Amino acid sequence: MVADTPVRQASLREHNLALVLRQVATSPQPISRASIAGITGLTRATVSALVEDLIAGKLVCEVEPARRAGAGRPANGLRLAGYGPAGLGLEVNVDYLAACVVDLTGEVRHHRVCRADQRPCPPEQVLAALAELATEATGAAAAQGLTIAGAALAVPGLVTDRGLVRLAPNLGWRDVDVPEILAGMPTLGDIRVGVDNEANLAALGELHASHAASFIYVSGEIGIGAGIVLDGRLFRGARGFSGELGHVTVHPAGLPCRCGARGCLEQYAGQETILRSAGLPGLSGTDGQTMADRIAELAGEGHPGLLAALEEAGTALGVAAAGVINLLDIDTVVLGGIYAPAAAWLRVHVEREIRERVLTAEWAPVTVRPSALGPEAALLGAAGSVVRAIRDAPARWLTTTARLTGRPTSNGPRSAG
Amino acid sequence: MVADTPVRQASLREHNLALVLRQVATSPQPISRASIAGITGLTRATVSALVEDLIAGKLVCEVEPARRAGAGRPANGLRLAGYGPAGLGLEVNVDYLAACVVDLTGEVRHHRVCRADQRPCPPEQVLAALAELATEATGAAAAQGLTIAGAALAVPGLVTDRGLVRLAPNLGWRDVDVPEILAGMPTLGDIRVGVDNEANLAALGELHASHAASFIYVSGEIGIGAGIVLDGRLFRGARGFSGELGHVTVHPAGLPCRCGARGCLEQYAGQETILRSAGLPGLSGTDGQTMADRIAELAGEGHPGLLAALEEAGTALGVAAAGVINLLDIDTVVLGGIYAPAAAWLRVHVEREIRERVLTAEWAPVTVRPSALGPEAALLGAAGSVVRAIRDAPARWLTTTARLTGRPTSNGPRSAG
Repeated sequence: MVADTPVRQASLREHNLALVLRQVATSPQPISRASIAGITGLTRATVSALVEDLIAGKLVCEVEPARRAGAGRPANGLRLAGYGPAGLGLEVNVDYLAACVVDLTGEVRHHRVCRADQRPCPPEQVLAALAELATEATGAAAAQGLTIAGAALAVPGLVTDRGLVRLAPNLGWRDVDVPEILAGMPTLGDIRVGVDNEANLAALGELHASHAASFIYVSGEIGIGAGIVLDGRLFRGARGFSGELGHVTVHPAGLPCRCGARGCLEQYAGQETILRSAGLPGLSGTDGQTMADRIAELAGEGHPGLLAALEEAGTALGVAAAGVINLLDIDTVVLGGIYAPAAAWLRVHVEREIRERVLTAEWAPVTVRPSALGPEAALLGAAGSVVRAIRDAPARWLTTTARLTGRPTSNGPRSAG
Repeated sequence: MVADTPVRQASLREHNLALVLRQVATSPQPISRASIAGITGLTRATVSALVEDLIAGKLVCEVEPARRAGAGRPANGLRLAGYGPAGLGLEVNVDYLAACVVDLTGEVRHHRVCRADQRPCPPEQVLAALAELATEATGAAAAQGLTIAGAALAVPGLVTDRGLVRLAPNLGWRDVDVPEILAGMPTLGDIRVGVDNEANLAALGELHASHAASFIYVSGEIGIGAGIVLDGRLFRGARGFSGELGHVTVHPAGLPCRCGARGCLEQYAGQETILRSAGLPGLSGTDGQTMADRIAELAGEGHPGLLAALEEAGTALGVAAAGVINLLDIDTVVLGGIYAPAAAWLRVHVEREIRERVLTAEWAPVTVRPSALGPEAALLGAAGSVVRAIRDAPARWLTTTARLTGRPTSNGPRSAG
């Protein structure tokens, strides 16, 4: 009934490790052991023992204090280490594959995108190509002294708890068992790959980058997905399939969609529709420039067909977004994917529809803005989700590395603090 | 950091009172003190002391055990008392005012609906008429030995935390300070009246009647509202204005709505639209029969205009509901208000649109069903919300009644459990 049983020593140590690491991670300047003790209420001895473990696990490093005038030697400061564990972000999308490595401080240490239409290839072939990108990324991480702690794969589709892709209509995937296929690829070694919907991973990245409490992250690609954050948490739905904004009806008797329905938002605001109605059906990104940047460049030059297409897309997106806001009273719409660099041209149309269609718009304002992580929020969000898991539960990482290196860890009452 | 401080004695007693009352409320048969002790882990002495307080506060009563063969006198059983505190439910809607009294067991002990178009009257006049219904209900409760513990008022509009009605477009209300107006009406005495959106109160009632974890409750009246329950909790939105399903766009360039937008669901599936397109614009309820029952009766007789109108309404409702499910992956749509008795005719159209438009419909089925509380879910949900507040926190009620009657309560370590 009442939670009055004592917390176990082991879980107390786990808790305190995370607590200390959080102080280091959130402090704008390097922070001293004494400051951590002061903030957390832990004893200095406990903090020192925990910090020792975090340093040994390459999660935290010591920095020399800045020289200053006056008496007394200032204490060494602590900050997150950029040479320990890192997260591998992977993405399969309709017209590209991508991989990136993000270290514990959040810095991107490797980034690679391969543009090619994935629709003609069977899933096994797509995932084999992705595994090559992953191997390259792991190598690049190792060359920089980093260890890949885990990977997350973003896919534009409906993903079950255990990583089965139920349906990715724009890729043409149905019931693709991604974990099983990846397990058969020796190149990935024993890196665990979590699979999730790309808009969900992007929304999680956005949540941690912007600290907004309630928003819808809209991922504009060939398909349109959404990640819905309510009260500071990603809302996944009753069966984990929330966020299918691209299949919300905007014209009940409208254009047929790949999903079998009519008038889905995707048919009015998806990337291929925008390019087709702009008279630019063959436009693609290059290795030097993303598709999204190319669109933004042409819009910036005043390409009349593209501006008209963006107006049409922004209007349809605004109708759907207004529905979301009428339903959920969300105060922020985040534009991601190709919508992020095109936000300057889309926003005015989205905002107009919201103003005209949302019952509360007059006194409960809504912000429409581009993603804080830019057009690659899903990829960065995927890598970031691995890093955040370590930051939230460092004990698990310490146990793993101790096993790998044969290094003993303090695990007794000494550091249970 | 870690929740290891001892729980205060007073709050422990509050917790244990609620715990004991919950065992009584959820037991299908009268339950003995010994059984409560066994389930909760509290000592028999503690349970007895707590039960004594609950009996004194008229929350629980003792019932004689059923005679049975064999040795030993069976223990007295406990069940919720039907002669103590009760909840007053009030409702202002576009074409009726209503009041009801629900006792602690959930039984409706008084129910009164006055049908009249409220739109011509200023809010003060509407609320004065409502206060008369409340006085009548309070009298009826007193005549049955019940004490009104509080009231909740359902309104078809956007309500702030403190009960200000920001906007009720179909009533024509804007910034109506209901608590202030009611405070000026001596007939209500010192009964505290909470104000909430009618669909939210209905959804809360539905949540407790059906125990569904994730659903959208759709309230079909002259306006259309929704209460959204996610993971077992009512989701109110960032500013408390969620659930405006009636203003979700179903035809972007469609019919103008009272709210100023075009193509809102309300214009295709609202009560007045249904009656007008059925060729029954003057239809109304009588004192013996509700409007909802009248519609169901005519549909049951096969009225061709009405059947066509219900098809049109059900289709529009299905388009909007499909959008909700694509976004939130909710597994249940509950039809309330006039939709509840008309569910037999609406459901097939709603289900068809969901089947055709929801990406996951094939393997993640959605149930469309009438409200468990029938067309008056908002009124019953309002009264029920008062009763549930007592059941969740009985200590507050016991303190209030002790103050009113001058009766002492046990509040020391004796019953702190």
